[in-house]
Amino acid sequence: MSIDAVLTELTSFLGDRMSRSKPDLMEHGRSETHFEMVLPDLVVWPISTDEVSRIMTLCHKHDIAVTPFGVGTSLEGHTIPLKGGVVIDLSRMNRLIQADPGDMVAVVEPGLTREALNEELRATGLFFPVDPGANATLGGMASTRASGTTTVRYGSMRDNVLGLTVVLADGQVIKTGSRAAKSAAGYDLTALMLGAEGTLGVITELTLRLHGTPEAISAGVCAFPDLASAVATVQQVIQMGIPVARIEFLDEASTGAINRYAGLDLPLCPHLFVEFHGSDNAVADAVQDFSDIADDFGAAGFESATRTEDRNRLWKIRHNAFYALTALKPGAKAMVTDICVPISKLAQAVEETRQDIAASHMPGPILGHVGDGNFHAILLLEEGNKEDWTTAKALVKRMADRAISLGGTITGEHGVGMGKLSLMEAEHGPAWEVMGTLKQALDPKGILNPGKLVPPVHG
Amino acid sequence: MSIDAVLTELTSFLGDRMSRSKPDLMEHGRSETHFEMVLPDLVVWPISTDEVSRIMTLCHKHDIAVTPFGVGTSLEGHTIPLKGGVVIDLSRMNRLIQADPGDMVAVVEPGLTREALNEELRATGLFFPVDPGANATLGGMASTRASGTTTVRYGSMRDNVLGLTVVLADGQVIKTGSRAAKSAAGYDLTALMLGAEGTLGVITELTLRLHGTPEAISAGVCAFPDLASAVATVQQVIQMGIPVARIEFLDEASTGAINRYAGLDLPLCPHLFVEFHGSDNAVADAVQDFSDIADDFGAAGFESATRTEDRNRLWKIRHNAFYALTALKPGAKAMVTDICVPISKLAQAVEETRQDIAASHMPGPILGHVGDGNFHAILLLEEGNKEDWTTAKALVKRMADRAISLGGTITGEHGVGMGKLSLMEAEHGPAWEVMGTLKQALDPKGILNPGKLVPPVHG
Repeated sequence: MSIDAVLTELTSFLGDRMSRSKPDLMEHGRSETHFEMVLPDLVVWPISTDEVSRIMTLCHKHDIAVTPFGVGTSLEGHTIPLKGGVVIDLSRMNRLIQADPGDMVAVVEPGLTREALNEELRATGLFFPVDPGANATLGGMASTRASGTTTVRYGSMRDNVLGLTVVLADGQVIKTGSRAAKSAAGYDLTALMLGAEGTLGVITELTLRLHGTPEAISAGVCAFPDLASAVATVQQVIQMGIPVARIEFLDEASTGAINRYAGLDLPLCPHLFVEFHGSDNAVADAVQDFSDIADDFGAAGFESATRTEDRNRLWKIRHNAFYALTALKPGAKAMVTDICVPISKLAQAVEETRQDIAASHMPGPILGHVGDGNFHAILLLEEGNKEDWTTAKALVKRMADRAISLGGTITGEHGVGMGKLSLMEAEHGPAWEVMGTLKQALDPKGILNPGKLVPPVHG
Repeated sequence: MSIDAVLTELTSFLGDRMSRSKPDLMEHGRSETHFEMVLPDLVVWPISTDEVSRIMTLCHKHDIAVTPFGVGTSLEGHTIPLKGGVVIDLSRMNRLIQADPGDMVAVVEPGLTREALNEELRATGLFFPVDPGANATLGGMASTRASGTTTVRYGSMRDNVLGLTVVLADGQVIKTGSRAAKSAAGYDLTALMLGAEGTLGVITELTLRLHGTPEAISAGVCAFPDLASAVATVQQVIQMGIPVARIEFLDEASTGAINRYAGLDLPLCPHLFVEFHGSDNAVADAVQDFSDIADDFGAAGFESATRTEDRNRLWKIRHNAFYALTALKPGAKAMVTDICVPISKLAQAVEETRQDIAASHMPGPILGHVGDGNFHAILLLEEGNKEDWTTAKALVKRMADRAISLGGTITGEHGVGMGKLSLMEAEHGPAWEVMGTLKQALDPKGILNPGKLVPPVHG
């Protein structure tokens, strides 16, 4: 259906909070990574659940595709509006509606970013822990079931979203979950919406679980003689239940890139970045236990930093890794992929991936949230080089196949988007079709983020 | 449809693992609590996913209702076969298929009970933490999204089930999730099945997350001058992030019942039962912090027990509470209900409930997993006394309304079953209808546990 059918009515309540200008369409048709741009027909900036509902009602009536958009930090092309139509940019719905230290919850609009939320929470002694690296919006993080560096301790979005307000395909508004810590009252619609990538509804409000700032925090870096010893350390730390709050792996190539990007001189070998949260004694115990294990596996002397500024410098390095790595090959496009495997298969999965990438002669540093068995490869492609693209796609597919054959998943945290769609059947078998059935039930016209997540016949 | 249509074919592969005898039908038509018995037409005892699939295929073809059954410990009448038909008793699918200490997972059949699992895990140094009190089956616990005493530390079934094998209404077998710690690969079908109470499929295999037995455990009991001081202690413990592994509240009436049942002489006042897990130092810190807070609120001197036998005696008392409480009124039927509220509303919710029950002159002790804001009332009814029944139903409804008005949920862990069905709309509004839409999509004939969870038009 043509967008013209809804323009007048949208204008009546959105006023100038909509645009058909080329730069706006381009800004909402591109992605952070290697996917080709597809332009929407219109971008709208609603400021309330009610406006989103009115937009959906109209688009539903006129069969117009709708793709929700936060700040566009997703890595698998989730927000590219494959069938054009309307992009709902939620960045102006970015209020912290309520921070409640008594219940340890925050109620937020979907366009608020995680860094902005934590900035606003600073005085409360509470924080929101999920940290995917990028300063994503909380709605986007919910929609991709994001996780990240602290998931090993605090869980992912799955564990830290108590409830949602969602506008369904036909404009109907529902609330899922509650402010209680748990519930057994019926189907877990919150969990169904988390990770649905905007294909089942548009999230317009989130109730988030907050955590108390720990009494003590200690962080550190240590260097390992080889990949196997670093990964073996991780496995043992997890299996012994040592309460690590972050445990991040960087391979040799990642370490080199970070050295160059941040002017550091870390030894050129695999590293673990770790952090511990808790009471003074609990953190001291954990640091000691970690240090003993790392020593056993030949790590160079681990030192922990408890000063905030030292820790912040450390994690800034880790968070800038994506930019450091893409700087390895100036002008390159990045194909960023992730898999997640059972912890006992981590060493095998990383080593086989490393060898596979090395054989391809494509730069492809590996790093990741190894406490969860989750790691990334950042494949660097020359823009427009078809051969590079084919090579990278094949590497990604082999990583995904490897994850499945080891009992893991084709994506631990980046989501399906466009990059993993063709791999869904291999992981889920007939359960993928069940996802299609659910999509069909909740969005029979297929207008919500079409072309994503479910089998194409349903999407 | 008559059951006769499927008897011959079922016999061909089930042999004598099926029954139409009155005692067997009664055993599967009753509940632990006050609900009226409804007999199924047939009970079957499959021993494999394939057999469950064949049973479902047949019943689907002939429009016969199917209700899955574990050991029948549910409290809200979940397993009562309201439309007769076939009850699938999963108690012979009770194997621990695999315990994998490396990945910290166990793969189990649904009829295995949690105590049997932990018995089998003993030598591994690992355990499965979810502890609803009753020795329920793991399939039943998954189906009600069970939680319990340790949820404040280890989470509920929602947090400890990594994947499922599920037989759908038409006999199709799907696998959800994986053995990886997390995934962002599509809709979270595992979460959708958890808490679905057998209305979307029959769970035939579970992959569970295990945890390491803590280095140190300490437990204790302390008495409070009144309800308000006990609950204020809980709130502060949670808000300060003191890592408590269990924190259970018993009111004065519960304490008295336990004294009589177990021959104890706890002072007749509200109590907290607590437990801490961690490293030696972490537990010592937590015990000290807890003790300081409890002292501030006037608790009688808290003493902690670290010896296993002392701790076991303590938790045996707590776990026998249900039997101790029902013994308060010999021959009575129990109406057991639970709600869960935001932690800041816990004192208000418990106090208003206590006053409401006191005004009714019905015995109704209160106890619960207060670290989650979750508590129970055990209402004791004279069997066949209609007035008692009306009074109790009204108390339950007012508790549920109170939970909703305080931002909580009508059930934190017991589930919907028959007892909470009429309260679902009040909690969920239009989202309840969305649950109906999902049910319709996955079980269009409405043969799976009919009459439960979703709006009657869909169920």
